[in-house]
Order: sequence, then structure tokens, then C-alpha cells
Amino acid sequence: MKSERWGRYLPFLSWARRYDRNSASSDGLAAIILTLLLIPQSLAYAMLAGLPPVVGLYASIMPPIAYALLGTSRTLAVGPVAVVALLTASALTPLFTPGTTEYVQAALLLALLSGGVMLMMSLLRLGFLISFLSHPVISGFISASAILITLSQLRHILGVQTTGDTALELLRSTLFALTETHLATLAIGALSLVFLYLCRNRGNVWLTALGFTPSLASTLNKAAPLLTLLVTALLVKLLDLDQRGVAVVGEVPRELPALTLPPLDPELIVELLPLAVLISLVGFIGSVSVAQTFAARRRERVAPNQELIALGGANILTALSSGMPVSGGFSRSVVSYEAGAQTPMAGALSALGMALTVLLFAPLFESLPRAVLAAIIIVAVLSLVDLAALKRTWQYAWQDGAAMLATMLGVLLINIETGLLMGLGLSLLLFLWRTSQPHIAVIGQLPGSQHFRNVARFHVVESHSVLSVRVDENLYFPNARYLEDRISELVAARPGISHLVLMCSGVNLIDASALESLEAIGERLHAAGIQLHLSEVKGPVMDRLRRARFLDLFGGRVFISHYEALLMLDPQTTRNTLNALASHCPIQSNLKPVKEKPE
Amino acid sequence: MKSERWGRYLPFLSWARRYDRNSASSDGLAAIILTLLLIPQSLAYAMLAGLPPVVGLYASIMPPIAYALLGTSRTLAVGPVAVVALLTASALTPLFTPGTTEYVQAALLLALLSGGVMLMMSLLRLGFLISFLSHPVISGFISASAILITLSQLRHILGVQTTGDTALELLRSTLFALTETHLATLAIGALSLVFLYLCRNRGNVWLTALGFTPSLASTLNKAAPLLTLLVTALLVKLLDLDQRGVAVVGEVPRELPALTLPPLDPELIVELLPLAVLISLVGFIGSVSVAQTFAARRRERVAPNQELIALGGANILTALSSGMPVSGGFSRSVVSYEAGAQTPMAGALSALGMALTVLLFAPLFESLPRAVLAAIIIVAVLSLVDLAALKRTWQYAWQDGAAMLATMLGVLLINIETGLLMGLGLSLLLFLWRTSQPHIAVIGQLPGSQHFRNVARFHVVESHSVLSVRVDENLYFPNARYLEDRISELVAARPGISHLVLMCSGVNLIDASALESLEAIGERLHAAGIQLHLSEVKGPVMDRLRRARFLDLFGGRVFISHYEALLMLDPQTTRNTLNALASHCPIQSNLKPVKEKPE
Repeated sequence: MKSERWGRYLPFLSWARRYDRNSASSDGLAAIILTLLLIPQSLAYAMLAGLPPVVGLYASIMPPIAYALLGTSRTLAVGPVAVVALLTASALTPLFTPGTTEYVQAALLLALLSGGVMLMMSLLRLGFLISFLSHPVISGFISASAILITLSQLRHILGVQTTGDTALELLRSTLFALTETHLATLAIGALSLVFLYLCRNRGNVWLTALGFTPSLASTLNKAAPLLTLLVTALLVKLLDLDQRGVAVVGEVPRELPALTLPPLDPELIVELLPLAVLISLVGFIGSVSVAQTFAARRRERVAPNQELIALGGANILTALSSGMPVSGGFSRSVVSYEAGAQTPMAGALSALGMALTVLLFAPLFESLPRAVLAAIIIVAVLSLVDLAALKRTWQYAWQDGAAMLATMLGVLLINIETGLLMGLGLSLLLFLWRTSQPHIAVIGQLPGSQHFRNVARFHVVESHSVLSVRVDENLYFPNARYLEDRISELVAARPGISHLVLMCSGVNLIDASALESLEAIGERLHAAGIQLHLSEVKGPVMDRLRRARFLDLFGGRVFISHYEALLMLDPQTTRNTLNALASHCPIQSNLKPVKEKPE
Repeated sequence: MKSERWGRYLPFLSWARRYDRNSASSDGLAAIILTLLLIPQSLAYAMLAGLPPVVGLYASIMPPIAYALLGTSRTLAVGPVAVVALLTASALTPLFTPGTTEYVQAALLLALLSGGVMLMMSLLRLGFLISFLSHPVISGFISASAILITLSQLRHILGVQTTGDTALELLRSTLFALTETHLATLAIGALSLVFLYLCRNRGNVWLTALGFTPSLASTLNKAAPLLTLLVTALLVKLLDLDQRGVAVVGEVPRELPALTLPPLDPELIVELLPLAVLISLVGFIGSVSVAQTFAARRRERVAPNQELIALGGANILTALSSGMPVSGGFSRSVVSYEAGAQTPMAGALSALGMALTVLLFAPLFESLPRAVLAAIIIVAVLSLVDLAALKRTWQYAWQDGAAMLATMLGVLLINIETGLLMGLGLSLLLFLWRTSQPHIAVIGQLPGSQHFRNVARFHVVESHSVLSVRVDENLYFPNARYLEDRISELVAARPGISHLVLMCSGVNLIDASALESLEAIGERLHAAGIQLHLSEVKGPVMDRLRRARFLDLFGGRVFISHYEALLMLDPQTTRNTLNALASHCPIQSNLKPVKEKPE
């Protein structure tokens, strides 16, 4: 019992017990690959956040260790990621000048706050909150963020200064700055961009054609960013390009960061808190999505609330060790997975690798051109843009498509928070709108069965004295009045009936407003000489109705199945239909199973 | 055709054609009664709005005429009402001193804006918006407003000055002012209050006991406020009480208001617009509720969008004729209905009566004590307080009760807008919360039937190879992830199964997020050697699924009924169960019909 409880809060215990030499050698090899491949990404995302690139390396040391101890996914790699870096920049640029000490300190405070928010959310069991961001909203958010990131990085490729936060501002500012393009920077940036793009899209094919095994080809290909950095850094060094105006990373101290608490300025905390909450939510959603994708492949389970603890711990540690806000990243995790990592130990070992890199190779980073880091960012994030998803989603349900479009436009044209809120708000509004005018079907009996379906879609038999109506929605305040109106219309069109049976198989909830409407419907029908009955009322709904004494007062019966209701109220028709030749051929043949079972 | 279209926008044509001498004499008599009975109410509600009492009479002239021409209810009486008067006061007192010319002008502008907002809402077909305020929220709003109105009128009964807008502020201010109570005023106010209260609650019984017929007793009893006003005015006159500090209505000009447009100050318009929207919504909700109550008694139909036009027209006319914001009132309508009004002509004739009253009897109002008007308001609104509804609603569903309580606390402790928003927001949040963790039942076949019910509630037969699961909720983003988790748990607990059939009778909608979850569930089950199938998918849901090509890819079948699915996948068990002795006795016998049909 005790060890189980420990295992819940320290998930590493579950794999640490069975850790053997095999796992260790896999993880060790993976850690070396991981270190090499993650260096460019870490440097680039720190630059995206407006921080000195070396901060990206610092932020790749403590967080993976924290996650290895606390996280529930064996594959998720935690460190600087693009979207969180973008959020960090958008939180801090209005307050401080990027690159200054105040800016760096504020980034640490932001990480600390995000970590605190995540722990608080875990404590309050708020992990379920992520359910309220729908897939289309998340997808729209990621595509739009990727476009925004690309636009913000163009300045490094062109070697110019730009201003602005929204897509339009960035675009205009970049266009105006075109005349000032620094040609040497552009040459390095554009060539890197083309090379990295081709590697990403064709590299595997070419390397396989050269005789490498697919898995080796894939790993080699992932080294393209590192190769590009090395070659361009060498070029800068040899040709003294940094003297000629090519922006480079610059001096990097050859030491590990000391463990310190960022200064806790109460005013700044109040100012940063909303964005810390946003970073927590976005980081959490991204991490859990990635973790669940891999969990499905590896047949594991991810516990959202424990993930909050792990990510919160990682962010607090990064804040104490001169890092930046971190999260679980998709591309980091893919690299780790494909490098053969067996357990989070690989991540922890790669943290060691990062630390060694800083201690031994820091001077090498001095000549890295920023244009190449920008190219690395652009190629990485452009693969996240999925505009086809918009079309696909719109075709499935325009309401979902509209929520996605609203998110994208909001993120691109206003800001990230507004975009997410617009998407969330529109999702909810359109859902309410959909449920406020529910589908209400008159149903009849399928010949040869005890099953009842919509008279408009199936060849079914209707009773002359009993009207059967199926409501396809929860009965609650947005549709309570609509139900009253529709029932009145249906009854008015059928003068001969003496019973109305409401089939409640689609009703999962009846709230107080709808209960009053049901009472009103019952009374009005009664006055018109028609008795209301219910059928197929679900257990939880029934429990509640009984509490309200509705059942004692409405005068009708509650039938266990719709068939039983009709058998009681119109036995002749019902028995005849049951015994009729079975021929449930739908009118438009549109409900026939479209495919045979594969087995 | 043409006359039908005219009839839609000018509903009076429908009754005007058949208008005869009988209707005319009924309406004429009703109009006289109505005029007499509505004078006290109109004076009182104008005072409640912080306006000179005579404004209430002005506002009872044009609006009933506008409504008679444009409204769809034959019973609704339009004029000054309590809640709208309260909203008017709460909109204007922060800006101007009650009773001043600026205040009166601003009230006209407010009425004009409300009228404009209503016409705009009608144009945009926004009448459906009222569905989003649930019954508990409206009920809580009315009770809390009535308490607030009562507290605001205590100062007139006590003859003191008070300040504050919230219940607590008013209560404290009144308590502090107790020492300054004006005894003569208190005597008049308290006696009126007791007399009016007794008449309202016992009057009919006493008058009937004195030998009057019940209907005459009821009408006579409704004259109690008029009687009180006359007697106390005489008393003031005889004893010169107004010289001794009893506040009276004061001089009233003996002329009808001229038709003028209130001054259109753009800044003031911007300031008043939000409250004009609120007055429009609240007035509209109140009117339609009252109209529908009477429509049900008289077997008529109320058209919400046309009601918006009628109320909008009434408010614009009241603004042009020195009135105040108006709406359809419950107590006015009851008076009209019980006085025997046949058509809206009664209201139009009573408008004439009001105009004559102003011209002939204005000097009589001079000595009316304000304390008596306050007593009339208090007795009228206290009957609207229904605290028992809170308990009743809470017992039915605590979520509805919580929304009601939030509305009440918001209205009482903050302000009316905040209260309504809190109620609306909480309703939505709790609905989402409820649907985010839906009821998911494992189901089995009821012996002797083709019907499937929850294994936890019924004695049903389960197949050993096929797991039957019924999801009792729309599948959409708040519960998409939850569904994945629950299905995994259910499958993990049943190692022997090879098929899972999801019964979709309770699923009225599958959004894009849930579609992705369904695909993920299908893939995961497939990997575990289990095939997913669907049954009883509704037509509209099926149409959509087909568009997404989900049906081609998930590998399973869609069965028309759950019975057919089991008949195909586990024929032996299913046939045996169908032929078994019919004994659908629920485990807790809690789904048995609780009452026999009355016939």
C-alpha cells in the first residue's frame, strides 16, 4: 500500500526497479544523440523568447531531471519549446528590452509563476480543464502560432530590425525593412533555410538511396541543424563575417548557472500572472497531447494531474537555474523516441550532456549566426501549420471549422490569449445554439422489430391513435421553450390522437426549466384531451424526476421501452407490425452499414 | 396573401375585423375599472423610478395604444412596471439627482434607447436569446429585485433619507436613519401597509362573507389602493399634514404632455446604452412570460419577435410623450383580465381614461402622501418573492438551485446586471461540467425483449464476447477525452471480449473533437484485438459521420438497432434471451410506472 502511494507521486519508481544494463546502454546512447540534436533547438528557442541563446541550454539541464522523477510518460522530453518561447516573448517585450538583465530576470519569474500555477492546478485537481479547449481550437492555435513565429523570425534571416506583435504588423514592418536587407546575413539565412527544408522533406530518401539503413538515415538527417550550425559558425570565423555585420550569438560564459531565486517584485508578479496562467495551460495541453500520442504507441497511461506536478516542478527548477519557461515538446520527444530512449533516464543523462556542453564547448557558440538559428526555428514550426485541417474540419461541421478559424484569426491579428478565448467562446456559443433548436423526430415502428425510428427516414408504421415523438437533445433551458412550441405544432397537425409518448432515449438530463416546460406540455395536452407518457427514461434522469414529484402529477405512465408503450396503448397495430415481414430498408438507403466487417 | 402579411405585422387586424358591440361594451367597462385601478400603480412606479409620480400617468397613455396595434397578446397590459422602474432608477441615480429636469430627460432618452434596442433585436431575430435565461435565474432575479425594491421604499414609509444601491447598503442606511423617523409619516405608511396587506390576503374572503359575489369581491378588493390613496389624501388635506412634514406628491400640471423628442446627447447615449439593453431584455422577458401565461389560458399564441416590435414601439412613444420606460406587467394584466377585457381595445380605452384623469383630476393628486405610494409598491412586489422556489429547485437539481442563488446574491449584493450575468454564467458552467463527465452505462438485454438497459439497474443478460456500452451524452469537446479514458477502463476489466458496440441512442451530436477521440478509440481497440461497432446512430449524426469518412475507416459496422447488433455478433445468447421468460423487473423496482393511467 505504502509503496503504491509513493509510486503514484514518484512515477519513476515503477521503471527504476526494473532498470537493467540493457536499458542503461540504450538510454546512454540515446542521451548522446539527444544532446547533440537538441543543442540547436535549445539555442534557437531561447532566441525566439528574446533571451540570450545560452539560456536555452541552461533550461535543458534541470527540467528533464525533474520530469524524469515526477512525470508519467516515458517518452516526453521537457525543455524549451516554440509556442511557450513565443508566449514568453509576447509577455515580456511590452515590459522590458529583450536581452537585458531585467528581461532575463522577468523570464525566470515567469517560469517560477508558471510552475506555481501548475502545482496549484494539480492541487485543485483542475487537470480536467484542458478538456474545454476543443481539438479544432488547439489545432487552429498551433497553426496560427507557427505562422506568427515564422513572421517574427524573418528579421533574423534578412538581418533587419522589425517591430510589432500581430501578423499584420510584423508583415508590414518586414516589408518596409526589405530595403535594408543585410546581404551576407540573407545569404547565410536563406541557404540554411533551403538546406534544412530539403533535409527535412527529402533527407531520409536521399540518405537511404546512398545506402544507409532507414533508421540510421533518419538519425543522421536529424543532425542537419547541428551540421548547419557548425559549418556556418566556421564560415563566420574564417571570413570574419561577424565583423561585417552578420549577427552572431556572441560571448557565452563557460560556467554553469548558480542556483538562485529570481527577485520577487510583487508588482511584476501581478503583471505577469495572467500570462503565467496562459503559459501553464498551453504548456500543459501541449505536453499531455504529445505524451498521450506516445502513450498510445507504448500502451501506457498518462495521468494529467501528475503531469501538472511534473511540469510545475520542471518550471520551478528552471527558474532557480537561470533557465526559461519549459514544457514537453513534440519534436524533442520524437528525437528521443527515435534515438531509442527506453526510460526518462535518457532525458536525465542528456541533461548531463548539456551541462558538459556548456562547460566544455561554450566558446564554440560565439560565432553561431543568428540567421541560422532563425532558419532552424522556421523549418521546425512550419511543419506544424496544417491549413488543410481547417477545410477538413469545416466540411465535417461548420461550427467546429468556425471555432478553428476564429482562433487562428484571433491569434494572428490580435494576440494569443484573445485568439484562444475567441475560439473557446465561439465553441460554447455554437454548441448552445445547436442544442437550442434540437432535432425532434416523429417515430414509427420498424416492421418485424420492436425498434422505432424517424418516419422521415425509414419505412416505419405509425399508430393512428398514439403519437410517438423522440427528442434528440438534453432538455435544458436553451431549448425548453422550443420543445413546447414544437410539441404544440406536432399535435395540432394530428387531430385524431389520444396519447403522446415522448421517447427519452436521447435525453440525458432534464433541468429545472425543462421540467416546468414538461409540466406545461402535460397540462396543455391534457386540456386538449391527449395524455402525455414517457418511454425509455434513463436511470439518472428518472431518479431526478421522482424527486420533483412530476411523475405523480402528470397523469401518464413511464414505459420501460417504447415498444412496451405502444403495445399497451395500441396493441393491434403494434403486434401486427412486429409480425410483419421484416424489411427495414431505409428510405434513402442511407443508414445501411456502409462496409462489411473485415474479419 | 397580402392581408395575411399585414396581419403578421399589425396583429390587431385579426380581432378588429370581428369587433362587435358585445366586445365593445365589455372592453368599455373594463377600461373604466382599469383606469381607476391603475392610477395608484402608475403613480407609485414612477416614484420608484425616481421620477415625479405624474410621469407614471403619462406613461400609461401612449404605450397601451401602441401595444394594442402591434402586440400579439390580447391580455398583456403595457405601462410602468416595478422591475423596469427599479432598473431606471439604478441607471440614472449615479448620474443625476432624482426629480430634476436632467433626470426626467435622461429617463426619456433611456426609454427611447430601449425602444430602439428592442426594434433592432426584432430586426436581427434575436427573440430567441431569452431562452438562455433559465427559469431558475429569472425566478431568482424577480425575488431578489422585489426584496431590493422593498428595501428602497422603506425610507418613504419612515419619512427619512437613505442612500445606497445594494441590499446591505440600503439596510444599513435605513437602520442608521431610524432615529430620525417622522412619526406622522410612519403612522400613515404603516397603517396603509397593514390595510393593503390584509386586503390582498384576506380581502376577498371578507367581502365574500359580506355577501358580495366572488368576482365582484375580487374587483372591489383591487380598489383598495385607490381607496387608501383617497382617504389618506383627504386626511392630509384636512389636517394640513403636508405642512407638518409628511411628504406628498405636490403640484401636478393639469395638462397633457406635448410630443417632443428628448435631447440626444451622444455622450449620455453611450453611457446609458448598456442599461437600455438590460431594460430591453428584462422588459421583454417579463412581458413574454406574462403574455404566454395568459395565452395558455386563452389558447392563443404569442410571437416573440412581434412582441419585440410592439414593446419597442411602446417605449419609443412613451419617450416622445414625457413618459418613462415601460413593459408588459403581470399585475396590470391580471387587473385587465379580471375586469373582463376582451381585446387590447380595453387598454387603448383606459389610455383615454388616463388622459382624462390628468386633465380633470390632476389637482387631487397634490396631497397624496408618498408613504402610501411606497406601501402600494411594497405590498405589490412582496407577493413576487418566492423563496420556497429556491429550496424546491435545489432539491430537484442543485446545479439549478446554485444558479438561482447566485442570481439572487448578485442582484442583492452587487447589482442587477451582475446578478443576471452570474446566474447565466453559472448555469452554463455547471451544464458544461455536468456533460463533461457523462453517465456511461454497460447495458444488457432485458429477457423476453429486444430492449437493452443498464446492467447496474436491471436484471439483464450480458454477452460474454460482446461488450455493450451506452453513452448518455452528446460527444463533444468537454467529454471527448473522458470517453477515451472510460472505454479503456471498461475494456481493461473484461479480457474476454472481441467486440464493443457503442449504443448511440443518447448521442445527438458528435463534434470534431469527439470524432478524433472515436478514431483513437477505434484504433486502440483494434490494437487490442477488439472491433468497435456503433448502433442506433441517429440520422443527423449519421449524415455527418459519413461526410468525415469515419465509417469507411473504423472497420466496424453501424447497426440499425442494438438488438440487431447482438443478434449478428452473439446470436446464441441474444436469441435465448429474447425467448426467455419476460421478467423485466428492475433491481430496485425504481423504474416501474409509478401511477396508473387515469382514464
